[in-house]
Amino acid sequence: MDAGVFDQWAARSLAQVEQALDEWTPADAPAGLGEAMRYAVLGAGKRLRPLLVLAAAEAAAAQGEAALRAACAVELIHAYSLVHDDMPCMDNDVLRRGKPTVHVQFGEAQAMLAGDAMQALAFDVLTPDGGMDAALQARLCRLLARASGHAGMAGGQAIDLASIGKALTEDTLRDMHRRKTGVLLQASVLMGAACGDVSDSAWQALSDYGSALGLAFQVVDDILDVTQDSAVLGKTAGKDQACDKPTYVSLLGLDGARSYAEQLRTQAHAALAASGLENTAWLSVLADKVVDRDN
Amino acid sequence: MDAGVFDQWAARSLAQVEQALDEWTPADAPAGLGEAMRYAVLGAGKRLRPLLVLAAAEAAAAQGEAALRAACAVELIHAYSLVHDDMPCMDNDVLRRGKPTVHVQFGEAQAMLAGDAMQALAFDVLTPDGGMDAALQARLCRLLARASGHAGMAGGQAIDLASIGKALTEDTLRDMHRRKTGVLLQASVLMGAACGDVSDSAWQALSDYGSALGLAFQVVDDILDVTQDSAVLGKTAGKDQACDKPTYVSLLGLDGARSYAEQLRTQAHAALAASGLENTAWLSVLADKVVDRDN
Repeated sequence: MDAGVFDQWAARSLAQVEQALDEWTPADAPAGLGEAMRYAVLGAGKRLRPLLVLAAAEAAAAQGEAALRAACAVELIHAYSLVHDDMPCMDNDVLRRGKPTVHVQFGEAQAMLAGDAMQALAFDVLTPDGGMDAALQARLCRLLARASGHAGMAGGQAIDLASIGKALTEDTLRDMHRRKTGVLLQASVLMGAACGDVSDSAWQALSDYGSALGLAFQVVDDILDVTQDSAVLGKTAGKDQACDKPTYVSLLGLDGARSYAEQLRTQAHAALAASGLENTAWLSVLADKVVDRDN
Repeated sequence: MDAGVFDQWAARSLAQVEQALDEWTPADAPAGLGEAMRYAVLGAGKRLRPLLVLAAAEAAAAQGEAALRAACAVELIHAYSLVHDDMPCMDNDVLRRGKPTVHVQFGEAQAMLAGDAMQALAFDVLTPDGGMDAALQARLCRLLARASGHAGMAGGQAIDLASIGKALTEDTLRDMHRRKTGVLLQASVLMGAACGDVSDSAWQALSDYGSALGLAFQVVDDILDVTQDSAVLGKTAGKDQACDKPTYVSLLGLDGARSYAEQLRTQAHAALAASGLENTAWLSVLADKVVDRDN
């Protein structure tokens, strides 16, 4: 496919996401809380998760604004996790998306509250008073809650915390990353699919696609951490190595990690082919973008 | 009513809540996360919010396990807020419910993650795969998300943070407390009512009841902070005064605050009478318990 066609779709989609996030993230929350939330969520980030939601929604022929709400909800969860992850008691990072992190800008207490309020806002956005099927609202809340909680993202972060300075097996490393970033990326795909109507076998294929893509994302993250500098990444490079965190590069070597990323790209494309769905072009390009990205 | 009858109902209800929280709060979450979550939520606390949910559910003649799920979800939100609120960047408290706070016991990073995962778990508990009406799941998620986010609890905490050492008007103080604790107490009542079937006017009356009770709760909290010692409270007494935080006692004086609490008790009872509902006995006793408690 012509890359320009995808880029046009992505630009149009991201403009909608940006506008919706701007509308739904409160400017008027009290005592600077809204300002901190908006700083954390608006105008930056690759928006990979919203694009996955919207691309899967197109594959599932979804109608209406449910997919846009799902896209924004997932991004709010992702953005809150970055705010908390950057705090001094966690990764203690001062640079994110090329800007001072939220706690540097607004203080630790406000950063913690902003993250907490962003998580609540994600579920708020998924449950509007009218205009969206109630069963779909419940299903999206279920997918998002499970992907972001102890069995998903928060659980992966706990393993990450406990693993600093330890030699991990590839199995443990994969489990950590699957929970920490993979499950939410996979949930993005499934939430988009839930907004439409797909067969059980297509659902399973999209789940496999999301799983491969989620793992590929982390493998490439580990590669970029050692091959790129901070200016390109928009965050502190070499951080994992400096913290003695286990990575796919430390485990497989740089060439091994690159080869693994290619395997996962192939798996993701194979899953799309197996889905039997017609409109998977955007999902296909997104898998390539995840593997080929340089930041 | 015979106080013993209420006590029997409350004991039976709390046993159910305790068992459900024990079942739904994971023991097997990775890397100590489950242990921290369980420490934060199980076996302690007055469980006022779950009792409000279940009492309102009885008033609304609710059937099935939805009310029990709502009761546990609200308590998970309340418990997570205490974990985050106690952290060094917020209130920096070391004692809670007579035990070391979560960050003292497990470290700051694990405490933050446990709180984050408990918020996600609340929405997870509200959205089971089967056995509960999907529209009710969505409605409960909506009520809980709005009560705990920027317009409710998190917003109130932001005002609280910004108000330390400042002279507040009674209006600002009331707005802060309404958001910080009142909105979630009110939501507890409404979530219980949503599990049954009540008229619009009864819904409004229960909302008024929850509002009066929520405010009374905070006024009494402020009274207890100056009249009780830490052993009775199970947390550090005199903390608000030491931090130069504005309270109803600093604003109205001790007698003024006590008189205000009595007014709010009367309002709560009047709202129950106006609801037209028959089974409001437990809600009535709970309003008394909130005003008459000594810890």
